[in-house]
Amino acid sequence: MVQNRFIIFGGTGDLTYRKLLPAFYNLFVSKKLTKQDEILIIGRRDWTKTDYIRKMEPWVKGFARFKVEEDKFLEFIQQIQYLKMNLSALDDYAILKDYVSKSEAQVHVCYMAVSPQFFDPIVEGIHQINLFNVRLVMEKPFGTDLLSATKLQRKVTRYFDEENIYRIDHYLGKDMVRNILTIRCENPIFDAVWNNRYIDHVNIFALEQVGVENRGSYYDKAGALRDMAQNHLLQLLSIVAVDNPHDLHTLSLQQSVVLHSLKLLEDSMIMGQYRGYLDEKDIDPKSQTETFARFSVGVETSRFQGVPFHIITGKEMMYRDTAIQIVFKSPYSGQKPNVLTIQVQPKEGVEISFNIKTPGKSDEISEATMDFCQNCQMQNRINTPEAYEWMLMSIMQEDGSWFSHWDQIVTSWKFMDELIRKKPKSILYEKNSLGPEGGLTSEIVECIEKPFICKI
Amino acid sequence: MVQNRFIIFGGTGDLTYRKLLPAFYNLFVSKKLTKQDEILIIGRRDWTKTDYIRKMEPWVKGFARFKVEEDKFLEFIQQIQYLKMNLSALDDYAILKDYVSKSEAQVHVCYMAVSPQFFDPIVEGIHQINLFNVRLVMEKPFGTDLLSATKLQRKVTRYFDEENIYRIDHYLGKDMVRNILTIRCENPIFDAVWNNRYIDHVNIFALEQVGVENRGSYYDKAGALRDMAQNHLLQLLSIVAVDNPHDLHTLSLQQSVVLHSLKLLEDSMIMGQYRGYLDEKDIDPKSQTETFARFSVGVETSRFQGVPFHIITGKEMMYRDTAIQIVFKSPYSGQKPNVLTIQVQPKEGVEISFNIKTPGKSDEISEATMDFCQNCQMQNRINTPEAYEWMLMSIMQEDGSWFSHWDQIVTSWKFMDELIRKKPKSILYEKNSLGPEGGLTSEIVECIEKPFICKI
Repeated sequence: MVQNRFIIFGGTGDLTYRKLLPAFYNLFVSKKLTKQDEILIIGRRDWTKTDYIRKMEPWVKGFARFKVEEDKFLEFIQQIQYLKMNLSALDDYAILKDYVSKSEAQVHVCYMAVSPQFFDPIVEGIHQINLFNVRLVMEKPFGTDLLSATKLQRKVTRYFDEENIYRIDHYLGKDMVRNILTIRCENPIFDAVWNNRYIDHVNIFALEQVGVENRGSYYDKAGALRDMAQNHLLQLLSIVAVDNPHDLHTLSLQQSVVLHSLKLLEDSMIMGQYRGYLDEKDIDPKSQTETFARFSVGVETSRFQGVPFHIITGKEMMYRDTAIQIVFKSPYSGQKPNVLTIQVQPKEGVEISFNIKTPGKSDEISEATMDFCQNCQMQNRINTPEAYEWMLMSIMQEDGSWFSHWDQIVTSWKFMDELIRKKPKSILYEKNSLGPEGGLTSEIVECIEKPFICKI
Repeated sequence: MVQNRFIIFGGTGDLTYRKLLPAFYNLFVSKKLTKQDEILIIGRRDWTKTDYIRKMEPWVKGFARFKVEEDKFLEFIQQIQYLKMNLSALDDYAILKDYVSKSEAQVHVCYMAVSPQFFDPIVEGIHQINLFNVRLVMEKPFGTDLLSATKLQRKVTRYFDEENIYRIDHYLGKDMVRNILTIRCENPIFDAVWNNRYIDHVNIFALEQVGVENRGSYYDKAGALRDMAQNHLLQLLSIVAVDNPHDLHTLSLQQSVVLHSLKLLEDSMIMGQYRGYLDEKDIDPKSQTETFARFSVGVETSRFQGVPFHIITGKEMMYRDTAIQIVFKSPYSGQKPNVLTIQVQPKEGVEISFNIKTPGKSDEISEATMDFCQNCQMQNRINTPEAYEWMLMSIMQEDGSWFSHWDQIVTSWKFMDELIRKKPKSILYEKNSLGPEGGLTSEIVECIEKPFICKI
């Protein structure tokens, strides 16, 4: 009898190789995945299990956080099976039904690691063969606007209950993202100032150095707003802005309250497209798709009324950095503001910029920095599960608190649809740059360039 | 014409050798003391200037923060003169009068680097010879209780105005002590929580590893309460507890307001005496003098009502450390409190202990630390004047804001007189220990033992 059977639709795709299998390997090494669990790879290719193992081996070796040892790897691959079927062809689901009936499982985790256009047939297929105890895992994007998301939601909920649907936003698996609420709510010194009386504005940014890579056909339809802002960045915003949640189970609802209250600030949008984007594979040569997006929103709650949140994301930037920068009001005009930065990736940690008397001067004030660098410590680097490990573990434990619930999806799309309708034309920017003019403020650049001072 | 003439009464004493002359040398190197300034050493011994230079040379070389270079030292000693006279003999002041009339000075800084019993004749003597433009510098202690302080004050103010009296508390020359107000008032994130709504208690401690050394005859009459608490530690307390001062010139008055509001907490006093104290030089073999003192006070202002301040000082302790530890209220019972520590010496800097999600765990909370280590940076170590440099510079600039004003002296003695009347018997403790039981809490020991994590 199998305990958890992870059925990976899209088992020969990039996500599976690069993220899921290394995560499964890490889980196996840390005994979170056991011999009672099975990873069933669904693929269209006429491969044997051996073919598949040969194909995935370098990915696991390259991307697992634990060093891949031969013995352990040989044990691990015992958990993997390969099943050839066409996931778009409803008839083929008989093959899956046949397979699972030979060795029953307690839980069927159906992981849709595929493009959204395949969600429909998979949901239909799984329903049709009447799998026992299904947890449906959906990769983003959940729809491409409110209409398509609603349609997809109707389809899925015809057969599945919301509590069995796990919509993955892998940002919610990042250790520092899960830390935001702790840092804020468990520390009276931070909680006391987490409101519009003290906070001047908030910068939330996610910058990449890569371009669209081999995701052109998807990306050119999505753009930065749909690819990064609607999900990841609005998640971060709503975690920063929610009222202190009493319970992780109501967090999602409280985040929705924040998303409901968002108001786009007039003329705050800057869209950009990196030079050379049009020459990338699978891109419409006349595409206006934004690879850089910046916009500002007000959060119209009593806690954050009047505090602008600046959201910034871009590809082919000079920097790779995801962080939340909370900029406090200056004590008086001309004085440097206090800044609390939560570094999400690749740096992980917390920084505070504050004012001191310039050492050795009597009347001068200078800026000083304190920080806690979480991933400077080898111990933490080794012990911290990757985002996808967290997600897979949570699914096994039926813990849906760090997934995107429908209420969030619907409110974020409502907001984003309107924003996308209003977005201005993309401005060209150079690769390896700061994006279009006005995109990255010097405040953000300084924050990115400041190295952690503490390396233990 | 001399600009500033520093007349050092007690020029062959420990303070002059160990602190003043190295400070003067530093000021000379950093061009704060010029060739127009003169250091006139008053001594009873029949020495020539050369004798004196020979005597003081190793002290300057040993204690100046700048490396003593031969050329510079030879220039520096040009500023020094030695004058033989008995400072207790009023007739001898004619010698001084004669000396100063030969080369007039703009300012006469009369520095009483002597035991308090000599204050009287010096004040009388200076008055008698009618020195021009006197700034009177008085080393602590200013009296040994309210009565003697008042008597001394009457004496001094018969001839001198309060604005020309500079009562030195060299703690007020320490860079981090001067930083306390900046850290607090220039940073909204700290200012917001600087009150009894957030602060649970405050620890202020000054621990020494040395014993009474050669100060037995003074110390045995004073004890830890008069030697450390009445001046240095009540200064720190009142700087931490004052309402945000708008102006350094009113700081002293506002500190007095705090001192007025102090209330000794019942049964909070612990006095200790280190084993071996009675065998030290110049100590009464039956002495009950405390070499360790701990007491707690409430500050009955609206800002700090209900927040106990724990004051701790001791000699022959396991540690050398002076710091202010602001311990905030826990977010809930059992949770580690946030702690903001201002390290005064030998460490200089700011530390924050706060809570994070344990890296790699989902429900666990751990403590993390951030710090700003001011004197880990060579740059700051070199550029930061020593306490006595600050004091001497301020006197030259006629800036009395970081000196102890009479209003503070009178209020602190009022409080301390009562405390001393009530103090319990001293408990014996071992050298190199934590003092008597209950003296140092684990919170303080942890704080002392925590090294700065940032060394740039």
